[in-house]
Amino acid sequence: MYPDSRAPITGAQRSGTPLGDLSAFSDPASVAIVGASENQAKWGYWLASGALTGRHRRTVHLVNRRIDSLFGQRSYPSLSQLPDVPELVALCIPSTDIADCVSEALPLGVRGFLGIASDIPNEPQLAASIRAHGARLVGANSLGIFDSSTELQLAWGQFTPGPMAIVSQSGQLGSELAVLGARSGIGVSRFVSIGNQTDVTAAELLSELAEHEPTRIIALYLESFTDGELLFETLRTLRALGKPTLLLTVGASAASSRLARSHTGSLTSALDVVDAACRAAGVLRVSTPSELIDVARSYLAAPSLAGSRIGIIADSGGQAGIAADVASAKGLAVPAFDDAVTAVLEDVLPPGASSSNPVDLAGVGERDLSNYVTVVERLLGSDQIDAALLTGYFGRYGTDNPDLAEHEVDIAKRLAAVAGAAGKPLIVHSMAADATPAETLWAGGVPCFGAVEKALAATSGLAGLNRKARTPVAMSIPDSNPALRTGYWAARELLAGIGVSFPRGFPAATEQRVAELISDIRAPFVLKAGWLEHKSEAGGVAVGIEDRVRLVELFQGMRGRLGDGEYVIEEQETSDSGVEILVGARREAGLGPIIVVGAGGTDAEVHRDVTIELAPVSADTALEMIDRLRCSALLAGWRGRPGVNTAALATLISKVSQLIAARPDIAEIELNPVLVTPHAAVAVDALIVPGGELAPDTVPVGAAARQPEYSRPAHEHNEGIMQ
Amino acid sequence: MYPDSRAPITGAQRSGTPLGDLSAFSDPASVAIVGASENQAKWGYWLASGALTGRHRRTVHLVNRRIDSLFGQRSYPSLSQLPDVPELVALCIPSTDIADCVSEALPLGVRGFLGIASDIPNEPQLAASIRAHGARLVGANSLGIFDSSTELQLAWGQFTPGPMAIVSQSGQLGSELAVLGARSGIGVSRFVSIGNQTDVTAAELLSELAEHEPTRIIALYLESFTDGELLFETLRTLRALGKPTLLLTVGASAASSRLARSHTGSLTSALDVVDAACRAAGVLRVSTPSELIDVARSYLAAPSLAGSRIGIIADSGGQAGIAADVASAKGLAVPAFDDAVTAVLEDVLPPGASSSNPVDLAGVGERDLSNYVTVVERLLGSDQIDAALLTGYFGRYGTDNPDLAEHEVDIAKRLAAVAGAAGKPLIVHSMAADATPAETLWAGGVPCFGAVEKALAATSGLAGLNRKARTPVAMSIPDSNPALRTGYWAARELLAGIGVSFPRGFPAATEQRVAELISDIRAPFVLKAGWLEHKSEAGGVAVGIEDRVRLVELFQGMRGRLGDGEYVIEEQETSDSGVEILVGARREAGLGPIIVVGAGGTDAEVHRDVTIELAPVSADTALEMIDRLRCSALLAGWRGRPGVNTAALATLISKVSQLIAARPDIAEIELNPVLVTPHAAVAVDALIVPGGELAPDTVPVGAAARQPEYSRPAHEHNEGIMQ
Repeated sequence: MYPDSRAPITGAQRSGTPLGDLSAFSDPASVAIVGASENQAKWGYWLASGALTGRHRRTVHLVNRRIDSLFGQRSYPSLSQLPDVPELVALCIPSTDIADCVSEALPLGVRGFLGIASDIPNEPQLAASIRAHGARLVGANSLGIFDSSTELQLAWGQFTPGPMAIVSQSGQLGSELAVLGARSGIGVSRFVSIGNQTDVTAAELLSELAEHEPTRIIALYLESFTDGELLFETLRTLRALGKPTLLLTVGASAASSRLARSHTGSLTSALDVVDAACRAAGVLRVSTPSELIDVARSYLAAPSLAGSRIGIIADSGGQAGIAADVASAKGLAVPAFDDAVTAVLEDVLPPGASSSNPVDLAGVGERDLSNYVTVVERLLGSDQIDAALLTGYFGRYGTDNPDLAEHEVDIAKRLAAVAGAAGKPLIVHSMAADATPAETLWAGGVPCFGAVEKALAATSGLAGLNRKARTPVAMSIPDSNPALRTGYWAARELLAGIGVSFPRGFPAATEQRVAELISDIRAPFVLKAGWLEHKSEAGGVAVGIEDRVRLVELFQGMRGRLGDGEYVIEEQETSDSGVEILVGARREAGLGPIIVVGAGGTDAEVHRDVTIELAPVSADTALEMIDRLRCSALLAGWRGRPGVNTAALATLISKVSQLIAARPDIAEIELNPVLVTPHAAVAVDALIVPGGELAPDTVPVGAAARQPEYSRPAHEHNEGIMQ
Repeated sequence: MYPDSRAPITGAQRSGTPLGDLSAFSDPASVAIVGASENQAKWGYWLASGALTGRHRRTVHLVNRRIDSLFGQRSYPSLSQLPDVPELVALCIPSTDIADCVSEALPLGVRGFLGIASDIPNEPQLAASIRAHGARLVGANSLGIFDSSTELQLAWGQFTPGPMAIVSQSGQLGSELAVLGARSGIGVSRFVSIGNQTDVTAAELLSELAEHEPTRIIALYLESFTDGELLFETLRTLRALGKPTLLLTVGASAASSRLARSHTGSLTSALDVVDAACRAAGVLRVSTPSELIDVARSYLAAPSLAGSRIGIIADSGGQAGIAADVASAKGLAVPAFDDAVTAVLEDVLPPGASSSNPVDLAGVGERDLSNYVTVVERLLGSDQIDAALLTGYFGRYGTDNPDLAEHEVDIAKRLAAVAGAAGKPLIVHSMAADATPAETLWAGGVPCFGAVEKALAATSGLAGLNRKARTPVAMSIPDSNPALRTGYWAARELLAGIGVSFPRGFPAATEQRVAELISDIRAPFVLKAGWLEHKSEAGGVAVGIEDRVRLVELFQGMRGRLGDGEYVIEEQETSDSGVEILVGARREAGLGPIIVVGAGGTDAEVHRDVTIELAPVSADTALEMIDRLRCSALLAGWRGRPGVNTAALATLISKVSQLIAARPDIAEIELNPVLVTPHAAVAVDALIVPGGELAPDTVPVGAAARQPEYSRPAHEHNEGIMQ
């Protein structure tokens, strides 16, 4: 017997969790490798040899139809001939043999299956059968699993224990992360190649990390977000527990979307919505495995970064300038210092050195290495920056002049000490990132890279990791839920009910009704055939109507052409200092309701001037969305024109976002445009499309339902209204 | 005597070049190091010890006021006590001693000085004195010079001989390039740290590289472009000689501009103009030293890259997707394959593998490594791609399974062979870029990197290096040069003379003249007070004038208010299918005339929708400029509207660009807007500002002269004209 009785009690055993939980995949009392092999080119070799490294903690059975001894221990021809029932079975056999093997295992009471092969016939049915027996399947098409704390290794490759959990929809990408991590000295706490997720999903596996003690940071690769809402809620929880997630995904290019379709069968979610979900959950999306590892390594080494303002210190003007440009390209701020900071630095620097940001040491470091420490210490002491970057020659003095080697290492220690005392990250780019001073810096909590773009990508990542998950928004709209009606007036009423402003107006089906109510509003008037989806195209909009006589005339004409229906008469907005903004909301498959704000007219589409967040958003978040638009320059008061009421716009955005979040029966809302004037934000047209997730059979109304982009130019809906 | 008589005959000696040329800095017959030292922390150590490595080729004198023997040879207290006159003197003494030393050297006949110190008093006067004696100065504030072919080493640091010339305004940045290059196996042909360029300029030093045999590629760091036109002409010539330049510069962020001002005393040129100059000269701008070295190394290893279409081959879907996204972000195209290519690949790939672009091998490489060769060969054989990227596990088989090591190296050789035979670059991202297969790939002309973003940045760089310098434009405008007159009608006439279309119209100073000519044009009319700089603001524009009666009325009123002057009456453009475009031209300090095309109205400024090229441009280049604008979507025919006449717009742009190039007395031209309709491109307003470089005393006319940005919204000049 293997000493699996000495294994620590697992979560499952502690809580008496019923069959079906995931503990079989993190700390099984026993495992069986079906298809075990001594041939290094086979999966059965890697999983068997890996499993055997944990045989002091658990029973490891090897199963091979044709061989009765492997790795110096007895192996068995089939699962049913094992002396006891394994809790977890790793399936390293051809895909066509798997169904039979599972059929044999389930009645025995096996609780978990790890599927490696990529093309198991009828995999969904197989998974259903496994679940029906209270067991679970990870994969198939998995590269395996690894857990450092329980010494469970059932995967291709080697793993170094450490603080980073890797959960990956692509086994090999997970493997690349593990390899790059090991090279950078970051080991793996748990590795799960989730494969096809036919049964166990990424969200489930991620939620297990909450109580996984060794995990301090999570590297996640996903290419589909079918369970996105649950997934990001899980990541948000992990973040709150101090375990942030770095996400790699695809879909930023047409080519990767093409691939994702053919590779996983699921449409890659639009990346901007994923980014919105990341912002809401406090997840940091990165672009490549190397970047992920650089950020993770820096996060694990350095103090947390409270903002994105960095001070740059260089011992050369050229390196200072390159660093400033790269920092800016990576979204970091390199603020000019105020006089107080400049004065403190000038005290150390020679005449002619730049004491603003970036700081050019102009030889003062070379003259006396301890000047590096002095300048870094004074800079980190300033409240005008959140971190410092030292770029250039430091780290190489000892290489070029061995007399300086020992002193330079001592300076590296002092640099680490002042950064530690300041509680702010110091990041170094060194021309000798492979020399001893660099190692000393890393050991002291100072990330040190050989390329300035790596140093600054890591810094930018640290700033991103520090951004908090968004606080849930308290709903401030009335919680009445009147049944959805179609047509413009109904949309107006629903939106007005939550506080959205519209021009004054009224619905009228008859000429008599028009005559009765017209004295309530002032000319010029707008007349709309409110029930029509495409009012303008059908000749159902008239604008600039100067008086009631002309209005009645036009009403008669329009009713003659278009027939009976709910016409709407409104005051025409005549402000010439307004800015048109598009406000939309919709439901995104897998990721839930979102709110969209963009430039009005053709600009949202032509110039891609659009921002997206998960709904609901607070008015503060709405203001941030507005600020991110390029056209916010127009709102602020363009070339002497008055600024407009962005606060009113932000409130409107927040309310619309709450409406889509509160009403699952709404598929889409579009206010296009909202006219923002110095005094108010007024919706000049509105469209509500029913057919949300709770009303799958509802036929969508309006063009928007058939066209998911939120960038339709204003003239399509509102031709004439605003002229 | 040192055997300098055995040194090869230098260019200067061959041609009997007079004193004042630069050969003293590339192959001096003798050098003297003033301030030579054996202390490794001193410049005098590095320059003296470096110079001595070349003493088998030239006389090396050491000068030190206090020591009479250094490095085992006699040293002298002053230059005048040397047994013969050195051709080149390296000044490793404090800045305050330099003037005396130079005064001593010049009467002796010294031809070249290398200045190290950064703060020489009265440096410009010193340089003038040197030039007056027919000698030259490199620096001061130089880190030194190195030439591999003449074994001249007068610089801090160590240098490995090789094919890359480094010319750098920042010594240490040049040094970083040399260090990174050496680490990547690219040595230096010539290194010049140009320092302050008080005498010898970057352009002069670069032109020397034309005949410098070992130089195959040039790494250039510059932060100011005072001599830009000559500089880029030199780089263009070098490019034509097969010696392309990779340029690093600063100015992409406010912080680096701040630094450049304080550091070099010269304003950093706007980066977009530098980029335009790079495109015209066939220079590739890169962002960081590491990127530069990766591109240079790949350029030196691989076949040239004819376009930017790449095929991606991955052994994992995740890595394929990441690569596609990064490629797209780096400006590479990842085109979908047509059926023929797909069929050829499907033949090799298993069912379920993606045979479009990116190609996912789905385990077929793992099954048989020679499949890597087959797929790469077939892909490179397609005319749909210009290069291939292989990303993922390849290179690591032997690491994980030593049995495969030898075979994998053999496959690497075969990969290099098929890429060589195809004459297209194959670039590899490998999870084991430090293992033997990677070395084999590099040796065979296949760049191999450990991070996919490095591999793709290098690929993108290769595509950039292949872009040809622009062919000079044959002038197609009349070469008459009428004297510049101010005012709108004069601008119209000058522009109409080169073929720019305007609405029909005429100038008129009196009511009688209006009455005489009005029957020649049709209503509605526009009336402008043409001589005013700010017509709209002064009430000098009236639009939508429906008939001649009203015109005369308005003319009387305007003349009553504004007085006598050259009024202009024009037909008002009434097309509603036109798109407004801004066309401008100006002269940029150091870099010459440029042409600017942007979105009309506020969009150029708000959405930064502007493109810039050096003037003149051909109509073809103008079309490319239009295509780069986001608003080109509007020109192509927006949502069912007719497309407009972009050919006419391109012709107009080309002509305006020729005008600014042909007329140095023009500082600025602005056509804002040009209304582009399905039939024509018509300038609706125009402004010409005199005061180019040949007329520095001319007082600029018009607001544009005081506001360098080309993004003034249409309403400032044309308020009312277009409504």
